[in-house]
Order: sequence, then structure tokens, then C-alpha cells
Amino acid sequence: MSINKEGSSPPAPVPRIPGFSRAASTIYNLKYALIDNTSPLAVMTKSQALQSNLDVDYVICYRFAKTDKTKAIAQFEKLCETLANVGLQTEVRNGDAHSVLLFVRVASDEHLYGEVYRSRVRDWVHGVRAAAPPKETKSALESEPLYEAERLRIIYQLITNPTYEGGAGITPKEGEWKGVESIFALHDHAYNKDWIKKWTSSYFLKTEDLDDIRNRLGEKIAFYFAFTQSYFTFLMFPAAFGFASWLLLGYFSPIYGLGCAVWCTVFTEYWRHQETDLAIRWGVRNVSKIDIRHRSFEPEKTITDPVTGEKVGFFASSKRFQRQLLQIPFALTVVACLGTVIATCFGIEVFISEVYNGPLKSVLVFIPTGILTTVNPILITILTQFATRLNQFENYDTQAAYDTALTRKIFVMNFILSYLGIFLTAFVYVPFGTLIVPYLDIFNVAVRPFAEDEKQLHHTNTSWSINPDRLRKQVIYFTVTAQLVNLGMELVVPYLKRRGFAWFKQMQSDRAAKNGGAPAASANDPPEDAAFLERVRKEAELDVYDVTADLREMVLQFGYLSLFSVVWPLTAVSFLINDWVELRADAMKICVEMQRPTPWRADTIGPWLDSLSFLTWLGSLTTSALVYMFYNTNKGPDGSPSNIQLWALLLTVFFAEHLFIILRLTVRHVISKIDSPGLQKERRERFMVRKQYFEENLSALKKLPTLSGSGGEINRKNLEEEARESSLRTSTPESRFWGRQRGWKETAAVAKNLIERAQNETTPQVKKEL
Amino acid sequence: MSINKEGSSPPAPVPRIPGFSRAASTIYNLKYALIDNTSPLAVMTKSQALQSNLDVDYVICYRFAKTDKTKAIAQFEKLCETLANVGLQTEVRNGDAHSVLLFVRVASDEHLYGEVYRSRVRDWVHGVRAAAPPKETKSALESEPLYEAERLRIIYQLITNPTYEGGAGITPKEGEWKGVESIFALHDHAYNKDWIKKWTSSYFLKTEDLDDIRNRLGEKIAFYFAFTQSYFTFLMFPAAFGFASWLLLGYFSPIYGLGCAVWCTVFTEYWRHQETDLAIRWGVRNVSKIDIRHRSFEPEKTITDPVTGEKVGFFASSKRFQRQLLQIPFALTVVACLGTVIATCFGIEVFISEVYNGPLKSVLVFIPTGILTTVNPILITILTQFATRLNQFENYDTQAAYDTALTRKIFVMNFILSYLGIFLTAFVYVPFGTLIVPYLDIFNVAVRPFAEDEKQLHHTNTSWSINPDRLRKQVIYFTVTAQLVNLGMELVVPYLKRRGFAWFKQMQSDRAAKNGGAPAASANDPPEDAAFLERVRKEAELDVYDVTADLREMVLQFGYLSLFSVVWPLTAVSFLINDWVELRADAMKICVEMQRPTPWRADTIGPWLDSLSFLTWLGSLTTSALVYMFYNTNKGPDGSPSNIQLWALLLTVFFAEHLFIILRLTVRHVISKIDSPGLQKERRERFMVRKQYFEENLSALKKLPTLSGSGGEINRKNLEEEARESSLRTSTPESRFWGRQRGWKETAAVAKNLIERAQNETTPQVKKEL
Repeated sequence: MSINKEGSSPPAPVPRIPGFSRAASTIYNLKYALIDNTSPLAVMTKSQALQSNLDVDYVICYRFAKTDKTKAIAQFEKLCETLANVGLQTEVRNGDAHSVLLFVRVASDEHLYGEVYRSRVRDWVHGVRAAAPPKETKSALESEPLYEAERLRIIYQLITNPTYEGGAGITPKEGEWKGVESIFALHDHAYNKDWIKKWTSSYFLKTEDLDDIRNRLGEKIAFYFAFTQSYFTFLMFPAAFGFASWLLLGYFSPIYGLGCAVWCTVFTEYWRHQETDLAIRWGVRNVSKIDIRHRSFEPEKTITDPVTGEKVGFFASSKRFQRQLLQIPFALTVVACLGTVIATCFGIEVFISEVYNGPLKSVLVFIPTGILTTVNPILITILTQFATRLNQFENYDTQAAYDTALTRKIFVMNFILSYLGIFLTAFVYVPFGTLIVPYLDIFNVAVRPFAEDEKQLHHTNTSWSINPDRLRKQVIYFTVTAQLVNLGMELVVPYLKRRGFAWFKQMQSDRAAKNGGAPAASANDPPEDAAFLERVRKEAELDVYDVTADLREMVLQFGYLSLFSVVWPLTAVSFLINDWVELRADAMKICVEMQRPTPWRADTIGPWLDSLSFLTWLGSLTTSALVYMFYNTNKGPDGSPSNIQLWALLLTVFFAEHLFIILRLTVRHVISKIDSPGLQKERRERFMVRKQYFEENLSALKKLPTLSGSGGEINRKNLEEEARESSLRTSTPESRFWGRQRGWKETAAVAKNLIERAQNETTPQVKKEL
Repeated sequence: MSINKEGSSPPAPVPRIPGFSRAASTIYNLKYALIDNTSPLAVMTKSQALQSNLDVDYVICYRFAKTDKTKAIAQFEKLCETLANVGLQTEVRNGDAHSVLLFVRVASDEHLYGEVYRSRVRDWVHGVRAAAPPKETKSALESEPLYEAERLRIIYQLITNPTYEGGAGITPKEGEWKGVESIFALHDHAYNKDWIKKWTSSYFLKTEDLDDIRNRLGEKIAFYFAFTQSYFTFLMFPAAFGFASWLLLGYFSPIYGLGCAVWCTVFTEYWRHQETDLAIRWGVRNVSKIDIRHRSFEPEKTITDPVTGEKVGFFASSKRFQRQLLQIPFALTVVACLGTVIATCFGIEVFISEVYNGPLKSVLVFIPTGILTTVNPILITILTQFATRLNQFENYDTQAAYDTALTRKIFVMNFILSYLGIFLTAFVYVPFGTLIVPYLDIFNVAVRPFAEDEKQLHHTNTSWSINPDRLRKQVIYFTVTAQLVNLGMELVVPYLKRRGFAWFKQMQSDRAAKNGGAPAASANDPPEDAAFLERVRKEAELDVYDVTADLREMVLQFGYLSLFSVVWPLTAVSFLINDWVELRADAMKICVEMQRPTPWRADTIGPWLDSLSFLTWLGSLTTSALVYMFYNTNKGPDGSPSNIQLWALLLTVFFAEHLFIILRLTVRHVISKIDSPGLQKERRERFMVRKQYFEENLSALKKLPTLSGSGGEINRKNLEEEARESSLRTSTPESRFWGRQRGWKETAAVAKNLIERAQNETTPQVKKEL
């Protein structure tokens, strides 16, 4: 495991990979050279510009292209005033065409500390921290210094939080603040360079490396890296086991299938456990339980909150539930749209490769891939918009509920997009192939122009049989080729986009200069800030990093492993290599291709964990079905459904599923018994707090005599005596009953008498009976 | 629902059932007359003896029959001293043969209040209460008065808790305190009589009635009654729906099956929700999370607790897990033992009723019932002992873990005992009947003595077909006859036992008196206490009430409904009637047949909830399988397995199971959205505490200037100025960068300039391009 125990020995020297590290460093420098290459003036201070952020906390990019001049000026003035009102100092500089850059920093550290303290008290009250921070702000900050991500988060919240929560209420791209295009912090290039260098030169990441990410980029991004690193480490088992099965057991081995299912279950449950541990380590446990009101929540009416007594917006759950039911038609639409495209392409491909017999076959076979790569992204964009609108229509009141619902919808779309093709091959094409292929003739419209005669367009060969390699090829495509392409796209596309954009702008400004038109934005920069401003203008143009997209990628990759890796046991080997690079490439992407992300907090990877569980469960079904269908022949049924014993297939699946359920319960039980440093730390903290409260509250009681204390003979006697006497004074049946024996010694004496008599009485009786 | 919302309208007049109520009252009086019937002397003060408990809190029954006289006396002296040490006053009286009765009461109320306060602080620290009790003990008790169950629980804990927790450490029947036979409180007969009268005269119980139970008998028992009442209320739906199906749809209706599955799911999930609500209402939420060390826990070694730093006993979870694996052979043994007995009896019964053809058939057919009723209780006793030992061997460190594990084991045994017979009929006899029945000839040994010739012992009729009514008859037997018998047994057996015991003792003492031997225990009683002591002696002989046995009964009953009610839709009607009586009979049992139970706390019905979930899930399998097999013919397959389409059966079950999983998720989601008074109350309390903490902690901060406060023009300006000046003093790149604009107004002015210029520049450029 990558997560070391706390307080372990000092980090062991990590094996270095000098080649890779040097290459990555070069790439990093090169990329930055490219960023700066449009400003020959700035070359002198380039390295300096990369070194320092000039105390800037945030940059606000204000665009006024579409706004009326006077309005824009008034609104900007208001922006400055609002920011000044919450204690932020501002400086304005010229931005790129039709924008200005507003630099923001906290006016005084003491004021920031007040905000930090308030945030920490809020955390404590919501159960994120076990103990309240010390009442002295100074000592609170000394005992637990502010880390960079916390600082940036608090300032960001100061800028964006609504005014009633003490923020400035700036909402980028929304409402009144439509002109505010983005709010971003500046990259810390010195750190970034170190980060990339360190990661590219070590095989494994350690918990300290993740701590570093958390301190710089916040817990949400750190959780992504922690998850990927855990997943990477776990992958070594299926990679080794898969390689061995591939050598020894061949494809569709039930042993591999079982091993893979166990691994998926253990990994999912382990991560669930690990997540808690990390959340405690980073002090963010229960952060997801702090309700943040969703910005676009539209209350139905205003009610008085029965809990807080405040007026709050209310939207009936029942009404929301009715709206949520729209998810069913939405899901059906998604299945229909994407399904049609995928099935059509699948049909065309099968038709061309297995029926069509004319010229250009080797070229035409790429038609479906072409359709998929053009139509699908368009469809996905449309459907995602639809999903977002539906999600907004469902009108969630908290940000967390909104995000969860949206993530689920996106998962459904991606699930279909990623796996439907393989499902079609495995469960439609292979078992029903011979029934279906003749109908594929309808796809001859796609290739009719190329055919020389009708015969080439029809299924003539009567001895046609399904292609047993199709399934494997498809799995290999998705788990190797597609992953590589994806990785490449992630790094190359934004780079090309940026290059193209820079080129376009250069050309435009050249033309403008030629025409004596507008000078470059940098024309009026003070020479000593020029390089810095140039860099800021570049960063303003970068994309915003979306960590869920990366998480989604990992979860979908996990899906291939759990659902289909029995088809090709080397899957995990491919993923292992891919993910080693992916982790570094993502770090690189954040440093180079994206704006510095705002450091949000999180205590979990959220609904993706449910997705993992779901994929693991579904894997138990598909793996068992695949093993049953393909194990014997290694190529599966021959395409006609009559050869499959449906009852046996169902029995296999039924058995496998329930085995899986029992397995999961057992694994969960065992893992829950594992103690981790995080959980221990939490218990220790809670214990200390408890102890302190207990002592505080019971100190008052110490003055009172205790019942259980060793109050001493005299005290006790007095008490009994008192009780007895007070009973005797008022002669009730109770007082007479309790007044017979005076103190415990008398009770014992009476009992002695009774016991002795009882035994004496018995003895003769027994004798008599004998 | 029986649980009304808090603050609802005053209770509506409840329809009275005068007949039943009068009968119950009579029974109650009669029973008490019977208890007292052996003591003619006491008749005069009988009613008085039933009215008052003479301030007695607990009675300790000390038996010395098997102990050496001197030892017994010394130990009893120690007992009195130990009790006095924790502030309890004692009185001793003669008990029945070889026992003495030690009466115990708290010496002074003030001291008890100290204990109560300590207990409440402990609760708060463990998260059971939202707010700490007020520091003044008196005001704490005034604002939240002590209820009887709390008082009795605290005194019981004072007697039994180990000395290091401030108790007297008296452990009944264990170790040093083997002589302490029982510790019990005295019945409050006035209340009991009211209770029975009230319940027997109303159709429904209200939440207030349950509150009453909680105040008297503690939350654990109150939870049983609340559960049974909820279940009873819910039963009305399947009773009505079942009756309608029985009239309109007949047996094995898929519609009824679906309705029943939905009902079971809704009920289980509703109870999960309701349970939380009640726990909050009764202020016991999270009580189950307070760890109480299990008494017989044997640590492997002593370690220093990493959390508290104290020395504690430690037993490795891995070792416990190894021991838990013994549950598998244990479960197999249980299945084998009970399964063999049940299957054998089943075989014999089928053989006699369907193969055997000789004389005495109508009598012999009861042989299997005879075997079952004699062998099963013996087997169950042995297996329960086995289960308890295994459970002890598993060595749980907390009481809760121990109880959960034991409950699970007992559930497995009862599951087999209750349902295996029906499972055999439905899934073995019906589908495989014709294959199996010929082999039943081996059971002819059972009836050989009665047969007249060999022909009567063999399966001669070739056109034999299975008996389609067998399944229904069996279900009716279990859901009507067995329930009635059970109810009767619960009330009658203890009564007969007690009567027999009383008769035996009477006889013995008569004989002793005739022989001039030992006089009755009551011989030396002071006349005014005689009736009271007589009553106490009777109560000392009563059994200890075990609430889990009653809960188990209800859960198993629920099982018949979820698993097999599709066979006979009237099941719920029978249960509805049965449970109305059962609720009252259980109340009666607690009042009359049992010692007053020690009022324990609980915030759940514990592992039985898991059992309910499990039975609901299994019900989705059995119901769908039964519907598939029996729906068309109404008598199922004709006994040969070839007639069942296994694939169709499996497909049905597979489909039903997954439908059920989706249903459960939906129901859980919907129910989680229901707001309940309890949850609201909890949120309100937590909010108040939070608010208070927040105010306390932030009051210190108010003195500090805030960033977000409307600090006013001057303050803000000063701040910015200061920052600017301090920057200028030391001329770093940062200070020069931030020093250019002086306050937000300058920033706005510069921006105005930039914006105006930008727009001016653009305008001509655009024109040029046009």
C-alpha cells in the first residue's frame, strides 16, 4: 500500500528513474517556453516571472466585450468596492482583448486569521473537528498552521460566498456578475516543477506525496490522486494473476474470473475504508455533511424552518420525486439514442467485414469508427446538456445533492457509451449471430456506391460462421488502444488548442499592428511587470480543471476490468502501465494545461464509490455468463441460440451473483475490523475531548457525596441511621418495614440466624427420609 | 399508524370493548387470587400487599442450599457490606426453602440523584444527548424528571456494575456471587392492573401507551411492543388485500405476490425509519454504541490502548474470525440434525398418508407430529447450548457484539425449524414427488407392526399422483394452528408449571408439618408484613422475562407472510387476529407470569431488523418461484421434474429478485425523505447546541475587526493605506506591483480608463474591417 502508517520511519530512498524524470523536466520547461514564446520582450525576466506570484492571491478576469461601456465601468467599480468591503486589496491591469485583470490579495493577515478561525469553529460545530480550536486566535493558528489550500479556499469563499454569509457574493458568469469570467489563483511554478520532477522519478507515490497535493490543491484533488494511486497499487495483483492465467489457463478461465471478482470486491471495500482513513488524516471527515445551499435552487414557497426558526425556501420532496421520475424516460432516451448509434455502427461493421465482399473493404471497414467518433461526441454533448437541465429542473437544495444526481446521470451515459458495444458482441452477436447477420443486409446502403454488383452486398456464403476473435479484439481495443488514445488526447488536444489560439491571436495582432489598429494588450505594461503579466494573461486563457472527469475515466477503466477482463486476462497489465503514466500525466496536465484549480474540500470520491460497487456487482453477472458461454470451446456458442442451455446459464449467473453477495459481506466485515492510524487518531481525539468534558462537568459533582465512593464507615452509618430514623418518625408501613434492622451489620446478623436455622431444620428431615 | 405526531390534537375517545376488558380484569384478579391462595392468613391484607411495594427498590434472592453454612454466612455478610458501601439500605427476611430475601433500597435520594446526573453526563459525552445536562444537579432533575425505568436501571447498575465503574459488582449466579440467585424489582400491581385494563379495552395502542411502557419497563421492552404494534397496524393492508385476492384471484396469484413483496419491503424500511424516530423520542439514540464490556470476555493479552492510554484486555480480531469460521460447520450440523428429523418425519407422514394402506392409518398419521414435538425441543435445547458455548468461545469483547452473534445463531436454528418443512413440500415433494415417493418405502419400518400384509406397505397404485393440497394445509397449519397453540402455550404452560410447583410445595410443607419438621418459610413473618412477604416469595419464583424470545416469534411470523403467504392469502388475516391478542397476552404475561423485568435501554430491535430484511429478500425468491410453479394449474407440477422449465423458473426468480432490489432502493430513498417529529426534534436540539457553542466561541472574536464586516470607509481605507505604505517602505517587486493603485477607487478609475480605451480602439478596427 502506498499509505504508510503515521509516525513510520523516515522515508526510504526511492529508486530514481533518471531517464523519465529528465524527459519530463524537459517537457515542462519546453511547455513553459512555448507559453512565453509570444512575448520576446519578456525573455529577460521569464524565469523570475515563473518564480514569484507577487503576493497575488486571486486574479479576476473581467470581460466587457458584450456589455455597454458605461454599464461595464459602473459594474467594475462596484466589483472593486465590494471586494474592498470584505477586506481585499485590488490592482487592475490590462487583459487580453476586451478584458481587464483584477489582482486581489488580502489586505491584512490578521483579518484573514479571523476568517480562518471562524471557518475552523464552524467545522468543529459541524463535527468535522473533534475539539474546538483554542479560543486565542493566535495560539489556534500556531498549534495548527494554515496550509496553502486552506488559505486559498477561504479567500475564494470570501470572494464568492453570498453577502449574508459574510462574503462578497461574486458569482462568476452569473446574474449581476456576468462580466466576471473567471476567478483563479496563480500557479506556483517552483512547486509544480518540483512536483513533476519528484513524481516522474519515483515508481510509487507515498502518503507524504499525497499530503503535499492536499496542502497545495485541496482535498478534492488529493482524493483523486489517492484513489488512482490505491487503484494502481492494487492493480499489481490482477496484472500478475492475469498474466499467469493468460500463460497457464488461457482465456475465459473460471479461476481467473473468480480471482478477478474477489479482487474487485476487496479493492472497492478497501477503498471505502481507506477513504475514511484519509479523510481523518486530512481533517475533513464529515465535510460532505455540511450543507451548502445550491445556487440555482428555486424554492416553491417560504416556510419557517421547524428546526432553526428561520425563514427558508422550501421545495416539497414529493414534487422533486415526481420530477426525478423523468429520469426514467431520460435514461430510455439515452439508451435509445446512443444504443441506436452504437448498434448501427456495430451492424455496419459486421456487415462490411463479414458480408460485404466488394472493393475498398479495407477502407470501408473504418466507416463505423468514423460515424462513432463524429456522432457520439455530438450526442454526448447534447445529452449532457439535457442531463444538466433535468438536474436543474429536479431543483436540489444542496450542492452535494445536486452533484450526486448529476454524477449519476453522467455515469449512466458513459456506461452505455463505454460498454454497450462489448455487451452487444458478447450477448447478442455471439449467441444470436446466425439469426441476425442475414438481416444486416439492410446496411448495404452504406456501401452500395462502392459495390460492383449485387452479389457483393448479400450474404451468400451459407457456411458463414461467427468470428470468435471479434469479442477479444474489441476488448483489446477498449482496454489498450482507446486508453492510449485517451491519454494522448488529454495531453495533446489542449496543447494544440492553445497553440492554435496563440497563433490566431498573434496573427490578429500582427495584422492590427500592420493596420495601425489596436496595440497588443501588453503595450502599456510597466516593463518590470511585463513578463509576469504576460504569464497571467496566458493562465487566464487556460481551461478550468474538472477532477470528476478524471475520476470518471478511472472508474470506467475499472469497469472494463470487472466486467470483461475474463475475455482477455492481460487487461490489468495494460491498465497498470497506463495508470503509472496517467497519474504523472494528470499532474502535468494540472500544472501546464489548466488554471490552478480552486482547492475544494471533500471526504470521499462521492457517488463514484457507488459506481464502483455497481460495476463490481455487474461484473459478477457478466463474468460468470461469459465463462459459462465461452469456457469449453474458447469461442463460445456457434451463433445459434439453441446451443445454449438457458437454464444452465441462468443457474451459473444466479449462483455467481449470490456467491458474490456473500463474498462482499464477508470482505466488508473483515475490513471493518482493520484498525487504521486514521481511525485510531480520530478515536484518540474524541476520547480526549470526552475526557475533558467529563472532567469539567463532573468537577461540580465532586463536592457532593457519592454513593459509590468509599465514603467511610462513619458517613455510611450516619446515612443509614438517618434514613432509618426518618422512617421511624412517621410510622407508615414502609417505615416499620425498613426500621427492623439497623445498618448492614444487623441485617447480616439476622441473616446468619436464618441461615443457621434453615440448615439445622433440613438436616434432621433429610435424615428421617433416609 | 399508531405513532401520532407530537403535539397532535388531544387523544380521540377510543372505542371500548367492554366484554374483553371485563374478562381480562377478571383473569387478572383471578390469577392473583391464585398466587395468593396458599396463604389463608394473608387474605385480610391481600389487596394492601398488592398495592404497595413498601419502598423496596430491589429484592435479592440469596440461596444457600448447596453452600457450606459458614461460607454462606460469611458471603452474605460481605454482600450486605458491599451493598451498604454503595449507599444501599438493606433488610433481610426469610425466603423459601434454603433462601433468604434481601430487600434493598437507596439510602438517600440525593445520592441517587448524583448517580443519575453522572449517567446523564455519560450519555451526553457518548452522543446520546445533544446537550449537556445543566451543571446544577437539582435543576437538571427538575428540567427532566427521573422516570421509573431510569431509576430502576440506575439502581440495578449500581448493584451489578463492576467496582471500578462505581458499582457493587454483584454478578448473579456467577463466580463469587453464585449464591445470588436473582435480583429483581417488585411488580407495581396498581399500574399493571390499569395497563391490562386499558389495553384490553382499546382496539389500537397509541404512542402514549408505548411511552408508558417505556417509563415503566424501559426502552428495550417498549421497543418490542412498538414493533409489534407497528407490525399489527401494517398487517391490516395485507389482511384486506389478501382477503380480496382470496375471493377474486384465488391462490398463487402473481398480483398478490407482488403486493405482498411490496408490503414486506415497505414495512421493513418503515420500521427502520420508525425505530430511529422512537429512539429519539425516548432519548436513547446511539445507546447501542456505548460499549459495555462483555462479562466473560477473556483477553489474550494486556495491551496499552492506543486511544486512551489505559491497560486493556486485547483479543485479536483475526483469531476471533478464525473461531467464527466454526459457525460454518455449526450451521451445517444444525441443518443436518434438524433437517434429518424434519425430513424423516415428512417422509413418514407422506408414506403413511399416501402409500400406507393398512389399519390404524388415521392414528398412525400422527406419528411424525409426535416425533417432531418430542425430538425437536430436545434437539433445540442441545443446539442452543452448543450455540451459546460457541458464542462464548468466539470471545466477544462487548455485550452488544455478543448478543448480536448469539441472536444470529438462534435465528438460523429457528429458521430451519420453522420453514424447512414447507420448503420440502414446495420445492422437493411437489416437483420431485413421483421420483421420491417410491423410496419412502424405507419408512415402512415405522408402521410395519400395524400392517396386515406386505401389500399395504408398498407403493402399489401406479396412477398415484401428488397431493396438491398438502402445501396449503401445511401453510395453514403453521400460520393458524401453530400460532394458536403457541399463544396458548405461552400463557398456559407457565401457569401450569407454577400451579404444579405450588402444589408440590404445599404437599411437601404439609408433610413436613405432619412430621413435625421444618415450618413454612412464612412461620416467622411479622403479621403485618406477612401478605407482602408471601407475595414477594411468589414473585421470586417466577421466570425471568426474555424479550428476544417474543421478538423472535414476531419475526418468524413475518417470515411466513413474506415467504409463503402466496400459498394461502388469508395468512395475514389470521396473523392480524392473533397479534391483537398476542400484544395483550404478552402484557399479561409480563404482569402475571414473570418477574418484573429489569428496564434496559435499547435504540433498536437489533439484529432482528437484519432478519426482517433477509426474510423479505428471500420472500422475493420463494414467492416468485411458487407463483411460477403453481399459478397455471393451481396445483403445481405433477411431481415429475421434467415438467418444469428450469430456465423459465430461474428467469422468473432472477427477474423477481432484481425487481425487489430496485424496489427496496426506491422505498428506502422515499422513506428517507419523510420527516418525522423525532428527527426534527433531534435536529432542533443539535441546532440549539450548535448555535450556543458558536456564540460562545465567537464572542471572543467579536472584539477583533472582521474582514467581512461593514467596517466602514475609514477603517477600510486605513487598512489599504497601511498595506500599501508598508509595501512601499521595502521596495520589493511585490510592493512595487501592489503600490501602483491607491485604494479601490483608484483601481476603478484605472479600469475605467482601460475599458474606455479598449472599446474606442475596437470600434474603428471593426469599422475598418467592414
